[in-house]
Amino acid sequence: MTDMMKAAVFEAPGRMAVKELPKPQLEQDDDIVIRVVRACVCGSDLWFFRGLTPQTVGGQTGHESIGVVEQVGSAVESVQPGDFVVVPFPFSCGKCPVCKAGFESVCPHGGYFSACQAEYLRVPEADGTVVKVPGSPSDYTDEQLASLLTISDVMSTGYHAAVSAEVKPGDTAVVMGDGAVGLCGVIAAKMLGASRIIAMSRHEDRAALAREFGATDIVPERDQAAIDKVLEMTGGYGADAVLECVGSKQSFDTAIGLARRGAVIGRVGLPHDVEISATGTFYANIGIKGGPAPVRHYDLNGLLDAVLNGDINPGRVFTGEYDIDHIQDAYEAMDQRKVIKALIRF
Amino acid sequence: MTDMMKAAVFEAPGRMAVKELPKPQLEQDDDIVIRVVRACVCGSDLWFFRGLTPQTVGGQTGHESIGVVEQVGSAVESVQPGDFVVVPFPFSCGKCPVCKAGFESVCPHGGYFSACQAEYLRVPEADGTVVKVPGSPSDYTDEQLASLLTISDVMSTGYHAAVSAEVKPGDTAVVMGDGAVGLCGVIAAKMLGASRIIAMSRHEDRAALAREFGATDIVPERDQAAIDKVLEMTGGYGADAVLECVGSKQSFDTAIGLARRGAVIGRVGLPHDVEISATGTFYANIGIKGGPAPVRHYDLNGLLDAVLNGDINPGRVFTGEYDIDHIQDAYEAMDQRKVIKALIRF
Repeated sequence: MTDMMKAAVFEAPGRMAVKELPKPQLEQDDDIVIRVVRACVCGSDLWFFRGLTPQTVGGQTGHESIGVVEQVGSAVESVQPGDFVVVPFPFSCGKCPVCKAGFESVCPHGGYFSACQAEYLRVPEADGTVVKVPGSPSDYTDEQLASLLTISDVMSTGYHAAVSAEVKPGDTAVVMGDGAVGLCGVIAAKMLGASRIIAMSRHEDRAALAREFGATDIVPERDQAAIDKVLEMTGGYGADAVLECVGSKQSFDTAIGLARRGAVIGRVGLPHDVEISATGTFYANIGIKGGPAPVRHYDLNGLLDAVLNGDINPGRVFTGEYDIDHIQDAYEAMDQRKVIKALIRF
Repeated sequence: MTDMMKAAVFEAPGRMAVKELPKPQLEQDDDIVIRVVRACVCGSDLWFFRGLTPQTVGGQTGHESIGVVEQVGSAVESVQPGDFVVVPFPFSCGKCPVCKAGFESVCPHGGYFSACQAEYLRVPEADGTVVKVPGSPSDYTDEQLASLLTISDVMSTGYHAAVSAEVKPGDTAVVMGDGAVGLCGVIAAKMLGASRIIAMSRHEDRAALAREFGATDIVPERDQAAIDKVLEMTGGYGADAVLECVGSKQSFDTAIGLARRGAVIGRVGLPHDVEISATGTFYANIGIKGGPAPVRHYDLNGLLDAVLNGDINPGRVFTGEYDIDHIQDAYEAMDQRKVIKALIRF
């Protein structure tokens, strides 16, 4: 077994490369090293790919993966070599008050992965981070593996949007954003019992998948036209819950405009240039909740079972598949919206 | 019976007066007219009294009252003359999706009272607004009447802060603001099971009442010193829930600084010059909820019973009592912090 591996690295805006890098090794007693089975490209990776946010040249990329445990630090108790695990995009201690409150994604002792698009990955704080999957990858179909991969980020993030928006049975929920997270938000709104799910989409492939996932209505309009449309659909009152899966000021303003008074906006889109009107939201009793999704919390409390039982099939968001040698193609396909989400198969 | 009544009116910043005005009459089929038994001065009344917000010269004032029904419109079904009622500071239709969701205070068909500091009051949309109290005022002690008066606003508003902040059993809750609302927020945090309640107060009379209401700790510090203090008290993690009962930028920034990651800030202080950092709150998963309190919803779902059973005694916030002829004294006492809250007795 060689001690080198293939890994994706950022070279310049618009240019990814595959490099031979040393395989990661155990560094701390609570580390594990996994062999990555599936990884993928995230919509948020496009920010640096497009040169809009800084990224280390030559640095590794990717924060979504599933894999098989290969090495285990001496302090690790919950997994052993050969175990199949989902690796949530945040790592976390699992023991502090923040983790215990179900917010592992913002554990002050944790952080975020940025090296998952590679053959091997070191996982710190393994006991507080990974989610064990029964059996081994070979026990699952490609479709199941794809769905398991989504609960490392996008499915859990869409779920966080729905939980944060306090979607209740019978609600009319609006999902802002038709990327993979928004589409998973549709699944999540349905899981929480929304009876009407309005997906904001103007791309036919995404709208079709939104319908398959449970959207009852598609609204292609934007800005005031979108607000007017949703108000018209809700007797003038607005939506009971809004899942904000974009993060732009435009999307956020629209979300506030179409929310029913007393509604909560569940936001999971990384905010860019967003300002929240403290007064406008106050006098409408509109709440704002959300942030990086506590993936582990949701996976252990429903999402893993929902995937294993076949209740949900979020892996359908992967409409393109690549090997690590074609990482540039994977990024380009996402960037050019040729695929909804690009899977990396090892 | 004369058709005139005494009513408080605003004359100029710093100057209230009592005028003889025509008694209000039924105007719509769903109106009632009540004889006011108790009213009071609100901390928010001080904004116009201090000349900080505009107010109509010669216009009536006050939004908190309890009273006895005197006249009933032909469409009113829920009350009849002689009934004793709490009048929530907002009026509401009680039937629309906003009201049904429990947010009567922002009913698009409703509004806010501004004429409660008077002997008589017209109440629109009576069936969707008032909260019936068993018996008549003479069945209750002065202390009980004072507590019933608080569930027209301050007690319900403090409760909205706690509910919005999602206070759970065992939580450490911080209450920002030691006015009547903040003090009622202490009561509410205790009702919802908080095991540690930190009241931010630097006034001895208010701190003492906070302790009586259930505060376990008093923090007189402000700004970064207050944040440091609460972090020190919580092992560096911050408070599980924050009740923001002030509304200033200073208070809001402190609230964010001392909130645990994943916590929700329940805000009920009318926002003045507040800006919410969309990014800072996002990466800490800090939620923001609140607004004008849905008084009727809370009164009908626990607060009225809690007062009637003697479980809570929020009327203790009234530390000064006046008749309508001394309305100027009542405002001045509030303005100069000689009393926590001024009751008007008729």
